[in-house]
Amino acid sequence: MQFARPLAELIAQLEKLPGVGPKSAQRLAFHILRMADDDVRRLSESLLVAKRSLRLCDVCQNISEGERCEICSDPRRTDDVICVVGEARDITAMERLNEFRGKYHVLHGLLNPIDGIGPEQLKVRELIQRLANGVSEVIVATNPTVEGDTTAFYLAKLIKPLEIKVTRLAHGMPVGGELDYADTATLLSALEYRREI
Amino acid sequence: MQFARPLAELIAQLEKLPGVGPKSAQRLAFHILRMADDDVRRLSESLLVAKRSLRLCDVCQNISEGERCEICSDPRRTDDVICVVGEARDITAMERLNEFRGKYHVLHGLLNPIDGIGPEQLKVRELIQRLANGVSEVIVATNPTVEGDTTAFYLAKLIKPLEIKVTRLAHGMPVGGELDYADTATLLSALEYRREI
Repeated sequence: MQFARPLAELIAQLEKLPGVGPKSAQRLAFHILRMADDDVRRLSESLLVAKRSLRLCDVCQNISEGERCEICSDPRRTDDVICVVGEARDITAMERLNEFRGKYHVLHGLLNPIDGIGPEQLKVRELIQRLANGVSEVIVATNPTVEGDTTAFYLAKLIKPLEIKVTRLAHGMPVGGELDYADTATLLSALEYRREI
Repeated sequence: MQFARPLAELIAQLEKLPGVGPKSAQRLAFHILRMADDDVRRLSESLLVAKRSLRLCDVCQNISEGERCEICSDPRRTDDVICVVGEARDITAMERLNEFRGKYHVLHGLLNPIDGIGPEQLKVRELIQRLANGVSEVIVATNPTVEGDTTAFYLAKLIKPLEIKVTRLAHGMPVGGELDYADTATLLSALEYRREI
């Protein structure tokens, strides 16, 4: 049996989403058919509105409603420290700490020569342009992966000549982790980043 | 940091879907922002179209575009055997077998006195009405759960006086399963349903 055409189309569209296989697309579709009309309309609209009304912040490239994102418009945040992240969602992780009071810069990706992603594909030029205005430190908060490391070293090489400090989030043991279960790379980093107590 | 408002709204709407937690709602939302405009429009539309244009088949209560679903309109299928399922998606599971050539009836739920779901909440009356027209067998293909069993016994008691055969899918060992790992209830059913070889 084929599903009725509009149902099959809905399932096909849902299946395109990341992490949604044929089975969960079906489950979602049947759920949607049982949802109240208003709820479906709200979901449908939120997709269009988000896609239509969001853009990148002119300054930090974060996802934003206006020319400047909330963080860049916040006068209580300092301009002299910039935290560089790979994706806009990484900002949320940092902001949960309630610790960092500087600004951000979103690269929208990480260097990956194998997939053909070089500095031109990332928002690197936009970052360098921001450094003219009294920035004292750039914290590179890219993921601790090969791509994240490559990106961090590339940025350090580019920015250090401008006499701006470039730092990186520490690698090491996750808090609460057990030495016995740590992988070699993590443990090696923990040793390398060790500090006096 | 708050997400930009349209992004927060999209995440909120996605979070309402079953199996979508805060984290995956965020992941989906960021993915949607990166999707092509056309793809987002197609997804958004498919939600509305499915919700608006689908209805229940007048005969079997399956999800359908017209008054009669594809299966009920198929002249190659016989009318004398009806397979009763709990949900419309159960039809897909049966149809994958390519074995059953009769028609279906969707109850849209299973009896569950604790949750207040009695025969009136299900499409039982519609099933009984269909039985007048020369039906010789009703196969109850409800899930092998307490609710499925209760529903099966209830239907059997209701239909048998009409001199129509009521059968049920066999319980037993899953093909390829190991006796050693089977739970007691399954093994007990397998014993009970045993047949001569």
